[in-house]
Amino acid sequence: MSEQITDRRIRLGMVGGGEGAFIGGVHRIAARLDDRYQLVAGALSSDPERARRSGAALGLDPARSYSDFVEMARAEAARPDGIQAVSIVTPNHLHAPVATAFLQAGIHVICDKPITRTLAEAEALAEQVAQSGALFVLTHTYTGYAMIRQARAMVAAGALGPIRVVQVEYPQDWLTEPVSEDGTKQALWRVDPERAGAAGALGDIGTHAMNLASFVTGLEAREICAELTRFVPGRQVDDDVQMMIRYDGGAKGMLWASQVAPGNENALKLRVYGAQGGLEWAHTAPDTLRHTPFGEPPRLLSRGGPGLAPEVAALGRVPAGHPEGFLEAFATLYSDAADAILAHASGAPASEGSLPGVADGVQGMRFVEAALRSSDAGGIWCAL
Amino acid sequence: MSEQITDRRIRLGMVGGGEGAFIGGVHRIAARLDDRYQLVAGALSSDPERARRSGAALGLDPARSYSDFVEMARAEAARPDGIQAVSIVTPNHLHAPVATAFLQAGIHVICDKPITRTLAEAEALAEQVAQSGALFVLTHTYTGYAMIRQARAMVAAGALGPIRVVQVEYPQDWLTEPVSEDGTKQALWRVDPERAGAAGALGDIGTHAMNLASFVTGLEAREICAELTRFVPGRQVDDDVQMMIRYDGGAKGMLWASQVAPGNENALKLRVYGAQGGLEWAHTAPDTLRHTPFGEPPRLLSRGGPGLAPEVAALGRVPAGHPEGFLEAFATLYSDAADAILAHASGAPASEGSLPGVADGVQGMRFVEAALRSSDAGGIWCAL
Amino acid sequence: MSEQITDRRIRLGMVGGGEGAFIGGVHRIAARLDDRYQLVAGALSSDPERARRSGAALGLDPARSYSDFVEMARAEAARPDGIQAVSIVTPNHLHAPVATAFLQAGIHVICDKPITRTLAEAEALAEQVAQSGALFVLTHTYTGYAMIRQARAMVAAGALGPIRVVQVEYPQDWLTEPVSEDGTKQALWRVDPERAGAAGALGDIGTHAMNLASFVTGLEAREICAELTRFVPGRQVDDDVQMMIRYDGGAKGMLWASQVAPGNENALKLRVYGAQGGLEWAHTAPDTLRHTPFGEPPRLLSRGGPGLAPEVAALGRVPAGHPEGFLEAFATLYSDAADAILAHASGAPASEGSLPGVADGVQGMRFVEAALRSSDAGGIWCAL
Amino acid sequence: MSEQITDRRIRLGMVGGGEGAFIGGVHRIAARLDDRYQLVAGALSSDPERARRSGAALGLDPARSYSDFVEMARAEAARPDGIQAVSIVTPNHLHAPVATAFLQAGIHVICDKPITRTLAEAEALAEQVAQSGALFVLTHTYTGYAMIRQARAMVAAGALGPIRVVQVEYPQDWLTEPVSEDGTKQALWRVDPERAGAAGALGDIGTHAMNLASFVTGLEAREICAELTRFVPGRQVDDDVQMMIRYDGGAKGMLWASQVAPGNENALKLRVYGAQGGLEWAHTAPDTLRHTPFGEPPRLLSRGGPGLAPEVAALGRVPAGHPEGFLEAFATLYSDAADAILAHASGAPASEGSLPGVADGVQGMRFVEAALRSSDAGGIWCAL
Repeated sequence: MSEQITDRRIRLGMVGGGEGAFIGGVHRIAARLDDRYQLVAGALSSDPERARRSGAALGLDPARSYSDFVEMARAEAARPDGIQAVSIVTPNHLHAPVATAFLQAGIHVICDKPITRTLAEAEALAEQVAQSGALFVLTHTYTGYAMIRQARAMVAAGALGPIRVVQVEYPQDWLTEPVSEDGTKQALWRVDPERAGAAGALGDIGTHAMNLASFVTGLEAREICAELTRFVPGRQVDDDVQMMIRYDGGAKGMLWASQVAPGNENALKLRVYGAQGGLEWAHTAPDTLRHTPFGEPPRLLSRGGPGLAPEVAALGRVPAGHPEGFLEAFATLYSDAADAILAHASGAPASEGSLPGVADGVQGMRFVEAALRSSDAGGIWCAL
Repeated sequence: MSEQITDRRIRLGMVGGGEGAFIGGVHRIAARLDDRYQLVAGALSSDPERARRSGAALGLDPARSYSDFVEMARAEAARPDGIQAVSIVTPNHLHAPVATAFLQAGIHVICDKPITRTLAEAEALAEQVAQSGALFVLTHTYTGYAMIRQARAMVAAGALGPIRVVQVEYPQDWLTEPVSEDGTKQALWRVDPERAGAAGALGDIGTHAMNLASFVTGLEAREICAELTRFVPGRQVDDDVQMMIRYDGGAKGMLWASQVAPGNENALKLRVYGAQGGLEWAHTAPDTLRHTPFGEPPRLLSRGGPGLAPEVAALGRVPAGHPEGFLEAFATLYSDAADAILAHASGAPASEGSLPGVADGVQGMRFVEAALRSSDAGGIWCAL
Repeated sequence: MSEQITDRRIRLGMVGGGEGAFIGGVHRIAARLDDRYQLVAGALSSDPERARRSGAALGLDPARSYSDFVEMARAEAARPDGIQAVSIVTPNHLHAPVATAFLQAGIHVICDKPITRTLAEAEALAEQVAQSGALFVLTHTYTGYAMIRQARAMVAAGALGPIRVVQVEYPQDWLTEPVSEDGTKQALWRVDPERAGAAGALGDIGTHAMNLASFVTGLEAREICAELTRFVPGRQVDDDVQMMIRYDGGAKGMLWASQVAPGNENALKLRVYGAQGGLEWAHTAPDTLRHTPFGEPPRLLSRGGPGLAPEVAALGRVPAGHPEGFLEAFATLYSDAADAILAHASGAPASEGSLPGVADGVQGMRFVEAALRSSDAGGIWCAL
Repeated sequence: MSEQITDRRIRLGMVGGGEGAFIGGVHRIAARLDDRYQLVAGALSSDPERARRSGAALGLDPARSYSDFVEMARAEAARPDGIQAVSIVTPNHLHAPVATAFLQAGIHVICDKPITRTLAEAEALAEQVAQSGALFVLTHTYTGYAMIRQARAMVAAGALGPIRVVQVEYPQDWLTEPVSEDGTKQALWRVDPERAGAAGALGDIGTHAMNLASFVTGLEAREICAELTRFVPGRQVDDDVQMMIRYDGGAKGMLWASQVAPGNENALKLRVYGAQGGLEWAHTAPDTLRHTPFGEPPRLLSRGGPGLAPEVAALGRVPAGHPEGFLEAFATLYSDAADAILAHASGAPASEGSLPGVADGVQGMRFVEAALRSSDAGGIWCAL
């Protein structure tokens, strides 16, 4: 491997994501897509044999295929060619301890969401990030879509006027029926409070929806009133989330996240309305954005098309009309993280830029805990 | 006028709907479309000169063009060829007194919605209906769409299994800015609490949304938690309604109605999810219905197309693929009402069949008052 | 019948459209919808008993329910309250003789399309129209859609620049399988060359597509190269039409009309591209028009919405977002015809305005004959 | 680099694709996405300095960064760790000589399309492929979409019955205006007959459309009648292609490819109709496929959703509802090619499987030459 490559590509490690896991593979594609990373180490499983096999399958140097993430953090920090960043793709309950180990070793963290199982854990982690001086990126994938960046830029530029109404929804259908004993590995841990936290759909997809609404509008939820339901008999966590939201500054919103809505595959949708116009974006057609200046015909903006903010026009790997999707949005997060890591390496103060970071993670856990509190109390308004 | 026509067509009167009014003309088209009615009398305005001019413009016999609806009810009841039914298309505050006058004269009533300004008025009117033995039809237009009838039939037949989630929304944008002094006649009364009631968007379109959800699912709202907002400065009634709903039987729902959502013309949408499948219908494409049996590819049902319930297949005036719209849905209500009137005339007990009636009106006012109560109390759950 | 009504509404007769027919009922709804006509006479069938029954069902005066259209023309012309216009809704082979009879009696004609079975018949009819001084309206229904009128206005105003490409298609699927012996009345005559002419899909829907393209662009086809196919075994007329078109002025176009395309109900679609922009309209969403000025985001125009030509903004019976469909488009033709008839009655020279007239009918038959000629010769370019 | 990696990943070279080029970068992402290739050599430009810079930017070993593709083929073939396959992403006129050089060196070829500038070149190249025993993959990207594979599988399984009508179109708008002198590098060579061949839109996108229609239906065009137009003044090659097609077995089709259709970014669309059903696929929503069995409601199949053929269900990197796009389709071609290369390496006879190969390239050039012949002759039917 030439020096040039070593200098150019970020040396990346991964914790979790071994055989049979889902999201680890997605992170690896995202890291690879724009050729900004090189996966060189991993603790892909806590089971040593499984870790070894998984590392071999990915072509890792056996010496850098660990089963213990603490050892990995220590060993990699000690190597001159050690990893510069680690991707954490474990079940939720391990996010905090793994992140802490690497942050303490001065290694940047790219962490799947939700950040932790509890708000207290998240706040403790935020302190670790502050103390470490390392970067912490939370992969709220949807913020990587070009047209979501465009929406954010337009709201920030005042194109909609003051925001009044924010409607966000994230329906799925894959938990419409009980997950059988022979269910997939990821389905099982996601409905297990021990490993996924007390929140089901709330933590899994509700946090994505909430984050997206805030990312685009720049508004934080101030109070929420939530109705969490477990529709499938025997399920231990919510599979449907309905919520009303009062935002800072007076905007009002609704949020619906469901995993029992047949016919919805992964139908995240955001609509934002201000005094002078509206924006609508749907994950089913992520390369387009509907802009409706009040009193004028709706306009369809598209990735690569005319009328975009300059920083958004620069995004995208293929011309307008060549669909980009989920993996490309994910890759944009990784590429932005690479930029932030290189900037940090050349002496700039640590900054995740517009990438979701630990503060977004803490805010997400505040949201989750407020929603649980609201729902447990029978549906009352709770401050975040 | 030949005997035959007299026998076949319902003799119809109208109160309201004179020069400059909007909804009266819509009722007249709806009554005319299937040739089941003949407009023969009216109190089109309370201003005598305006009433006269409006009647003349419609070709009414001047002797049957009234300015006082009480006199009209009395006079028409006394004529051998008097009206059999009256359409009430006045501002909301007159619905109750006008309906009462005609019911007491034994004349069937077809009334625009919302039924009254208050629940008390609605309950009193329900008693009048019961005492009169006459029919009372409330024109919740959307229940006349063929594919809404299909959705109702499918839910009733159990095609979705037990209903879990009901999402309904009705965004518009026409009140995004303040209504100027030179605004249209109808815009002004709709934002005036004296004439339209204490509810703005809630009464105007929220009631439609609620009624549609109940019509299709057969479920009634048991408790609601509402957030009513007046976004436009100076506005005296709500222009945005957000709500969570607990239905009888455990289903949960959300309702959003807004008149300040730029880019939404009249975008009523209903989505219903049960344990075995889902249905989605949008007013922007009213001739289609998306059915998603869980675990199978979504299917697109269409008016006139294959796979419909027999009573729905019989609806529709033009073949599949020839769009029918709002006026046709409205006309279906009128045609159904004509059937009900003829059945009553031939001795059958008074029954509006599947048409929305006075009970739906009362339920609608219960909904409005519960929403106002909930919102006024800061957003608490209130029983209907 | 009061004087006022007599003065205001056009007295209308109808030939064809008796029991079991389809298009007659559509014409009646269209005539009734805007209350501009009163159906007072008819030769609804050539079978006297059927004509009598059909007339009675529609409430016609028995004295004005004819079975012989020649007698009807004579009798009505002789009455002081005779019909002012006649709707011709017979099978195609009767269009010419019926129209001739009424034109010679000085009665305006509203004729279903295609105008005749042959070009020669059409040209002879055009002479009759010229000699009569009466109006002749050909019901190319799609020209009545508000957004089609908008498209025409935009092209005429140069919004697209010089037109380059015109793509029109009209797929259906209802003749995918052979029409059984117990098929509907209209299906049978439409596949019978004796009654429908030598053209199948070509005459039935191809003519609509061609007319629409010309109506919107203002361009006439100069040469066509056609491929007509009979896919269903035993069928005597084409059920699929493919065609390339050279328009006056250098624009190029394609036309596809099919009755054997499963999944297409009545999916007429027009796309027009010029040097400065494009327009797209689809019958599946007739209230919208996509406008794409080159180099700018596409805009979605809608009936009743912002950005329309003044004469189009004035069309429409219900506000934006309340779908209008096929019957409303048809009614717009009838209303425009009523205006033309009244203008003629008050002394203006006969003019159908923007309504399709006899010249369009002749052009349509030129198109049909050129297509048959082209296809019969193995697919060569033929001038119209 | 560990042995394992060497064994697992295909060693890849690239000719073309240096600084400022477009399609080379797309090929590199596609090769990288599924981690099946390692780019280790290149002749990224014929300009030595540019080649060197481009290679350095990609981290190539300088010793394997060539400027002469002939030298590259020779040198790589001589190395024990030489490339196993080469990606050819030069302008069209170099495809044949570059491919020949590598085939003669026994190196597999992955070539951008169109295969060559002329049919004669293509046929000569086919002989080279046959003699070499190496694999030749032509990157007709659209054949990599999961739902296109599904469509092909359904047609092959007889789900539509005998195919009757095949409608394919590929409109773009990026050449609506003349390409200025400061146009992008790729735009200029694409409108230059010397480098791109005599065909403009025909060769650039028309070949994609034709290939897609054949890939899905399994039918070859037998005769075509083409109308090629140069709408933009001064343009030397066609920018709009209209065509009628007679397929083997009696199916009829139309093909439209345009680069002057404002509002169309890259709107490839295929519709196939048979005696028992239809299929519709559009590049604007590539993860879905509309299936319309005649007489039943249309069904929406989706990548990852229910009802797919087993080999298609196995495709896809992220779950249903997470959009995949153009790069993923491209990556699927590369992954399939990797499988074919590995199979060949382990002794299986050379086979591109369902991947487009040299025969498809020859057929594509037959199509291009027939279209040019047809159009030059004024639009006559020509055999392929």
